[in-house]
Amino acid sequence: MLLKDLRTAVLDANLELVKRGLVLYTFGNASGIDRAEGLMVIKPSGVDYDGLRPGQMVVTDLDGNVVEGTLKPSSDLETHTLLYREFPSIGAVVHTHSEFATSFAQAGMEIPALGTTHADTFYGPVPCTAPLSDEAIGGRYVHETGLAIVRRFAATDERAAIDPLAVPACLVAGHAPFCWGRDAHEAAHNAVVLEYCAKLAYNTLTLKPDADGVSQALLDRHYFRKHGPGKTYGQG
Amino acid sequence: MLLKDLRTAVLDANLELVKRGLVLYTFGNASGIDRAEGLMVIKPSGVDYDGLRPGQMVVTDLDGNVVEGTLKPSSDLETHTLLYREFPSIGAVVHTHSEFATSFAQAGMEIPALGTTHADTFYGPVPCTAPLSDEAIGGRYVHETGLAIVRRFAATDERAAIDPLAVPACLVAGHAPFCWGRDAHEAAHNAVVLEYCAKLAYNTLTLKPDADGVSQALLDRHYFRKHGPGKTYGQG
Amino acid sequence: MLLKDLRTAVLDANLELVKRGLVLYTFGNASGIDRAEGLMVIKPSGVDYDGLRPGQMVVTDLDGNVVEGTLKPSSDLETHTLLYREFPSIGAVVHTHSEFATSFAQAGMEIPALGTTHADTFYGPVPCTAPLSDEAIGGRYVHETGLAIVRRFAATDERAAIDPLAVPACLVAGHAPFCWGRDAHEAAHNAVVLEYCAKLAYNTLTLKPDADGVSQALLDRHYFRKHGPGKTYGQG
Amino acid sequence: MLLKDLRTAVLDANLELVKRGLVLYTFGNASGIDRAEGLMVIKPSGVDYDGLRPGQMVVTDLDGNVVEGTLKPSSDLETHTLLYREFPSIGAVVHTHSEFATSFAQAGMEIPALGTTHADTFYGPVPCTAPLSDEAIGGRYVHETGLAIVRRFAATDERAAIDPLAVPACLVAGHAPFCWGRDAHEAAHNAVVLEYCAKLAYNTLTLKPDADGVSQALLDRHYFRKHGPGKTYGQG
Repeated sequence: MLLKDLRTAVLDANLELVKRGLVLYTFGNASGIDRAEGLMVIKPSGVDYDGLRPGQMVVTDLDGNVVEGTLKPSSDLETHTLLYREFPSIGAVVHTHSEFATSFAQAGMEIPALGTTHADTFYGPVPCTAPLSDEAIGGRYVHETGLAIVRRFAATDERAAIDPLAVPACLVAGHAPFCWGRDAHEAAHNAVVLEYCAKLAYNTLTLKPDADGVSQALLDRHYFRKHGPGKTYGQG
Repeated sequence: MLLKDLRTAVLDANLELVKRGLVLYTFGNASGIDRAEGLMVIKPSGVDYDGLRPGQMVVTDLDGNVVEGTLKPSSDLETHTLLYREFPSIGAVVHTHSEFATSFAQAGMEIPALGTTHADTFYGPVPCTAPLSDEAIGGRYVHETGLAIVRRFAATDERAAIDPLAVPACLVAGHAPFCWGRDAHEAAHNAVVLEYCAKLAYNTLTLKPDADGVSQALLDRHYFRKHGPGKTYGQG
Repeated sequence: MLLKDLRTAVLDANLELVKRGLVLYTFGNASGIDRAEGLMVIKPSGVDYDGLRPGQMVVTDLDGNVVEGTLKPSSDLETHTLLYREFPSIGAVVHTHSEFATSFAQAGMEIPALGTTHADTFYGPVPCTAPLSDEAIGGRYVHETGLAIVRRFAATDERAAIDPLAVPACLVAGHAPFCWGRDAHEAAHNAVVLEYCAKLAYNTLTLKPDADGVSQALLDRHYFRKHGPGKTYGQG
Repeated sequence: MLLKDLRTAVLDANLELVKRGLVLYTFGNASGIDRAEGLMVIKPSGVDYDGLRPGQMVVTDLDGNVVEGTLKPSSDLETHTLLYREFPSIGAVVHTHSEFATSFAQAGMEIPALGTTHADTFYGPVPCTAPLSDEAIGGRYVHETGLAIVRRFAATDERAAIDPLAVPACLVAGHAPFCWGRDAHEAAHNAVVLEYCAKLAYNTLTLKPDADGVSQALLDRHYFRKHGPGKTYGQG
């Protein structure tokens, strides 16, 4: 993909978030990466979505150095760059403060896989990070936000690693969701579906606090219906 | 009804679901049947609603064999065909992941008949299936989804059979609602009313968890006001 | 007011309900009365709001006999006529199944006066009727619905009478709200404000189930700020 | 700023409230002040927003005497004037009955700082006043409403003073929010963000009633990211 096309794809992803009601004012950002060139395209910081043009997108390298563009990149830049460095399979990152996903993040709760709507996109619960320590917050905070996500996906003594493409989203405790995908279109789509699943989970848990999640069999069936070599959904 | 008209009616039903906010992206589908010809018209799988045309609808027989059309039918095809075979009185089927009906399905709860809005369309609670077994999920899953609905409407030692036209909807546990009607227009209408009743029931139960349902007398009065030979509602 | 103008005012009230999201499909109706002529104008039964014209409104006398119009009047006609006969101060009646007011009706709960938004329009809680008996439901049901409202506003040994213009709305248990006002514009406005107050009350009670209502002093201050000879609100 | 420009800015702030869904009918008002001239511009009372023009804004002095304009000023005038006199750093005031902020006010609850969305705009919980006494309500009620806000921001034996620009909003118990800012644009923006934060807090607390607020470190980090000399957000 040419850098020019990536700018347009990243802008389109940003606008999809607005169209779907996921961002209030400038509370969100999307980026995409050109792995061959080692360059990233990201929304400028605090700029209105109305009238935003591809040429206003900021190009940086994977250390966050601005390569092209006269505007300052999103203040969440270092979270994006860290995710690209640590999750080599992803091609785009989206951050929003969408209502229900953010509410779970504020509660410090993961979004459990309560139904097939969730299982069609997320192969398991959407996890929530541990709270950031005061040291992390006082230090390289934006970078530490990315680290908290990466740590949550890594294997520990108690749990297995999570494949970032199988569960393409994470809640940052006390903050909001980060989502990703193989490209900008998919990352924005995942952010929209995450918000919908969060809303369903909110309703379900307020109706029935001890609702069971889907069985492993149902999770497998729905996830692999839409993903991987054996997928049967769609025209592809 | 000519097959050409059925294609248009089925497309219109799909678009009504979008217009009423019942489907996100491609999460829904509608079909209709021509009983005389033994042919069914259904939405293609995973195709955007924008710009969808009658000619893109897929025609199959009641065993799900594609008779006309170049696109793959909805991945829920076998649930539709089973419902047509088992419920001979119905003429159309609609499946959505609409927010509140899906939330009840995820909670594994029926939608109780809590008021006259519900009773005007559904002659009793909208039931929820038993969870599918791992064997059913691992086997002919889409067909088994239909079977779970059919079993929920059949008589058992504990309960009477439910007439599918009297209660034209069922929640599939952990999944989402299926609705139906005598024709595509009615099936879509029932899906919209179901979502509205689910929302009312959610609000009611979160306000007052032990809310009583309507009395049998009120259920009778409202249901038969709009249905059957003695109906008094509307201009008909 | 000429009957011609009343038809237009009643149609406008019906359309205001649609515009404000209070009615799904045909689930609502408005009427107005010409007390001098003893004639009432009401929406026809089950007719779509799109394209509805003043000439389609139905004119009846206060016993519900159709005087002008070729369409059948709303199936709730006898509730309207009873309210006009029993509440001589009102000039219009509106019935909806609006989401939150209906949810309180389904819970059999009154809407308490929890804040000044409520007190600006309703001088006390919006009451909920007792459930209708099986005899009432099996008899002249629509008339009995009106009777249940009238009884709820009458004095009893335990409580004082309620002035219908001071609290221009009532919830019918297991059913939905009826609202009214001095004219069709005001009745529709009251229905819209009722739904807003019901939503606020729902949020407040789910946040804090034992929330206190406003004090009598605050109720007086806000209600009389907008009503009666000493009102200070607006340009009038 | 010329008085002419202030009229336009105040009108724009009023219209932003409508556009963002914060006001139903005429339930809200915005004002702005020209400190050099000692003059205030405020919305007229009970006038529809549709077609409202800058010339209809009412100009008063800080005692509430009308200096220019033929319409009556907002009935909340004396709350606005008091806030301008007591909070010399603010340049505009906005009052709404927005849904979720009003629900917290009705519950008599502050809006806790549960996440970074809140911390980006409000440096701590958004407080709620004590209930007004019957004497205050029966006396100069609108003035007393302002006093209750001012008292809530003043230091007491139990708590420190709150800087009105650091927490630019207050809930009035049993009533609704008042917001402010350095200018009319910022005050309206704060009202919109307050409503969004109230919605997130409602969801969070109904999911997890004992949710912890953000840490002091996170509050500092996010607030000072967007405010003060060290701010890094945006292009400024």
